[in-house]
Amino acid sequence: MIETKAYAAQDEHTDLAPWAFERREVGPNDVQFDILFCGVCHSDLHQIKNDWFPGVFPMVPGHEIVGRVVKVGSEVTKFKEGDLAGTGCLVDSCRVCENCQQSLEQYCLNGSSPTYNGYEQDHKTPTYGGYSNTIVVHQDFVLHIHEKLDLAAVAPLLCAGITTYSPLRHWNIGKGHKLAVLGLGGLGHMAVKFGVAFGADVTVLSTSPKKEEDARKLGAHHFVVTTDAAQLEQAKGSFDYILDTVSAEHDFNMYLSLLRTNGVHICVGVPPTPAQIAAFSVIVGRKSLAGSSIGGLKETQEMLDFCAEHNIVADIEKIDMKDIQIAYDRMQKGDVRYRFVIDMATL
Amino acid sequence: MIETKAYAAQDEHTDLAPWAFERREVGPNDVQFDILFCGVCHSDLHQIKNDWFPGVFPMVPGHEIVGRVVKVGSEVTKFKEGDLAGTGCLVDSCRVCENCQQSLEQYCLNGSSPTYNGYEQDHKTPTYGGYSNTIVVHQDFVLHIHEKLDLAAVAPLLCAGITTYSPLRHWNIGKGHKLAVLGLGGLGHMAVKFGVAFGADVTVLSTSPKKEEDARKLGAHHFVVTTDAAQLEQAKGSFDYILDTVSAEHDFNMYLSLLRTNGVHICVGVPPTPAQIAAFSVIVGRKSLAGSSIGGLKETQEMLDFCAEHNIVADIEKIDMKDIQIAYDRMQKGDVRYRFVIDMATL
Repeated sequence: MIETKAYAAQDEHTDLAPWAFERREVGPNDVQFDILFCGVCHSDLHQIKNDWFPGVFPMVPGHEIVGRVVKVGSEVTKFKEGDLAGTGCLVDSCRVCENCQQSLEQYCLNGSSPTYNGYEQDHKTPTYGGYSNTIVVHQDFVLHIHEKLDLAAVAPLLCAGITTYSPLRHWNIGKGHKLAVLGLGGLGHMAVKFGVAFGADVTVLSTSPKKEEDARKLGAHHFVVTTDAAQLEQAKGSFDYILDTVSAEHDFNMYLSLLRTNGVHICVGVPPTPAQIAAFSVIVGRKSLAGSSIGGLKETQEMLDFCAEHNIVADIEKIDMKDIQIAYDRMQKGDVRYRFVIDMATL
Repeated sequence: MIETKAYAAQDEHTDLAPWAFERREVGPNDVQFDILFCGVCHSDLHQIKNDWFPGVFPMVPGHEIVGRVVKVGSEVTKFKEGDLAGTGCLVDSCRVCENCQQSLEQYCLNGSSPTYNGYEQDHKTPTYGGYSNTIVVHQDFVLHIHEKLDLAAVAPLLCAGITTYSPLRHWNIGKGHKLAVLGLGGLGHMAVKFGVAFGADVTVLSTSPKKEEDARKLGAHHFVVTTDAAQLEQAKGSFDYILDTVSAEHDFNMYLSLLRTNGVHICVGVPPTPAQIAAFSVIVGRKSLAGSSIGGLKETQEMLDFCAEHNIVADIEKIDMKDIQIAYDRMQKGDVRYRFVIDMATL
């Protein structure tokens, strides 16, 4: 077994603290890589606090993981020692259902294995995430990372990146489309970068007027302050798509009114309470409220390749492992531009 | 002016009663037709009771109107005296917005003119519906009705028909798709007929086990009693589309769980309270909650032509005008198979 150092939450009431555990030995199809950086996702905090569902404790969060391969199993053909490697939100899936067969592992019908706060495919071995010094993952769930980009800034692509890339690709959003990105945080800032890269006319919708400068630096063409009634009125019926990255409560009917006929409001954030949707909000104008979850392995690699080609990374602030609680506090206040990434050398 | 006899509600608290009013003289582009039959839509009752929004009173309901042309204006080329004619939910629209230009008059960006409970395009002349003996409508909003079908049973096609036909066509639902029709009422029974005609594998979802026999007679291939937990469990993740015709409160998250990956739940009914949608209900499986409203004029004519070709009409029960209140009471109890149609000769 492989001795592993980590930060873990022992239950939903206690802060993260150092913890040691064992990862499995490298099997024939496994890749072991030492973790260099791990992104801090808002869902890390939601999960250790049991905001969505009861968690599996002790919990080692972290699903935006990049590092360097230190060992590969005898059957591993895709990686060799010394390669950069990454793992996102999934470490395994059933591989046989119709979704897995199409590399839609995120929608595995038999239940995929999340990188943490869940179980391996044996449904009994807990998984532990990237707030740790090393990880062992089946080669099919390890991604190739290009050497040319800033590695720390690549880490958030594994969740914030693919979560916004995938719906933009699925709905074929690009040239000729007016795209609104709702919320300018970790996901939102990636949505702006991808939307712009795909040729869409991008508007950032935000409650904070002070984010306009950043939005424009990220490439957004327009900015609407959603607390300004006049600006909202002018935006009515104007967007083909809204990519909604907000995980706080918000007024979906108001946002649906900003869509054009046949417009789609795509949720990638998970608010704590259900959306309240008046039937007329979707019936008038044949609109849709849709959702999208991360992306499959094939698409995640495609996204990483696209980012390497177009020099796209996240805007990040590096932190030490011991400062994770400060980072969580700041993240809850929206005081992060736009993703904290833990330098795992500080573990 | 044209003296017109009707049944009207004087306000939301009083029952329908005989009322006389004047319709405009037949203008150069107008068609006047004497109304032979008018369908009774659940929305007639919602509107006279102000369930959705404050109505325009006196209100003459009725937007499933068929009859025979008695006079045409000098510029009318599409109709002549003696022709069968029909009018659905719309009597005019702005004609210049991008939606009107595509014959999506139901989504007119400047506000279409509903057949009743609204205003002509002058935004001040109230419109009065089909619970009346004659009507004057611009020729562009009059539909051709084929002589071969039972005329009374054609009337409901103008609302119940097009409201279900249009989304099935828009989402291209047919061969290879598993379609669930939620609710077997006026809209639902038409959805089954169209779904079957388009080649879909059709399941009726209903709270009433006693509707199974009817569902199968209408052509449905399967029937699921939604109050039976075992039947629901088996239906999980199985439908490509749900066409939701229910206008009572219901559990959208439960129905979304019956959809396959990428499935779409299409609302055409208008419940009195907002749908409560948990983000995970759409995020897991990349599902959508969509809406659809009636259909444009071109599509409505296409639907009428399709029905003539395939011998599709509504299943109806003819009533006398004086019995409208009894019909409303029975409709509220779901005691109608599947549409009341008023024989306007009884006015």
